[in-house]
Amino acid sequence: MSKLNFSISGNSITATRYDGKARHFNLTVDEPEEFGGKDVAPNPVEYLLAAYAGCINVVIHLVAKELQVTVNNISININGDINPDRLFGLLTVDRAGFESLNVDIDLDSDASREVIDTLFEQVKDRCPLNDNLSNSTPLNYNIRHLVN
Amino acid sequence: MSKLNFSISGNSITATRYDGKARHFNLTVDEPEEFGGKDVAPNPVEYLLAAYAGCINVVIHLVAKELQVTVNNISININGDINPDRLFGLLTVDRAGFESLNVDIDLDSDASREVIDTLFEQVKDRCPLNDNLSNSTPLNYNIRHLVN
Repeated sequence: MSKLNFSISGNSITATRYDGKARHFNLTVDEPEEFGGKDVAPNPVEYLLAAYAGCINVVIHLVAKELQVTVNNISININGDINPDRLFGLLTVDRAGFESLNVDIDLDSDASREVIDTLFEQVKDRCPLNDNLSNSTPLNYNIRHLVN
Repeated sequence: MSKLNFSISGNSITATRYDGKARHFNLTVDEPEEFGGKDVAPNPVEYLLAAYAGCINVVIHLVAKELQVTVNNISININGDINPDRLFGLLTVDRAGFESLNVDIDLDSDASREVIDTLFEQVKDRCPLNDNLSNSTPLNYNIRHLVN
């Protein structure tokens, strides 16, 4: 298949709020009040968790269909810890983002444990978010500095 | 500072739709109709782009304040290509996720180009999303297989 391009375009509204548009969807990101925001929307790392959970859901169903596995219900809960010291400019050797992510899945299915193991090997290999989180992605910045 | 924990909890609603909750926010993820969804919400990789853009916004303002740089306006647009072959189970050597991400920023500020360069070195080092995208993150799956 040909490659697909995905994009978001938007603007800084406040020091914590970003309003963006992806296709016909408006997406607002903010921070809780304790991080200086107005808490009008989830914060950036919560958007990342939603992206990852949503991606896992799609790929579980895709692979289950191929394996002719019936899936009745799926709960997906993801959490992780961040040491905010680096973000706030404090001296630390810790990384800025999630140290790791814990993906807890309750899967209601009549399939055998062996088939479920095969299914999740495929999910991990084929889920775009799993790839971009577990491997390095080149980030190309193009900064246009406008001076009035 | 002590570590912060962020989480999302939710359920598969359809083969493409996930409804999750992060703190008091409801987050719905879906896919466009061409990928089998009902297009009721942005898709997983669009959530990732929103997370990254929102994170860059927060960290630009945080660092600008430290450097006593006045920022008037910021536009942040991010896009990237995905080869969907791996996701769809077709033979490919290409990765599943974004090959790379292009971050286009228009920054309206009276600061010198040198100061802006320093600012973005800090942004790249301290933005949690920049870290989790440019470096590998351990992903720990805990799968509970319920059989009725």
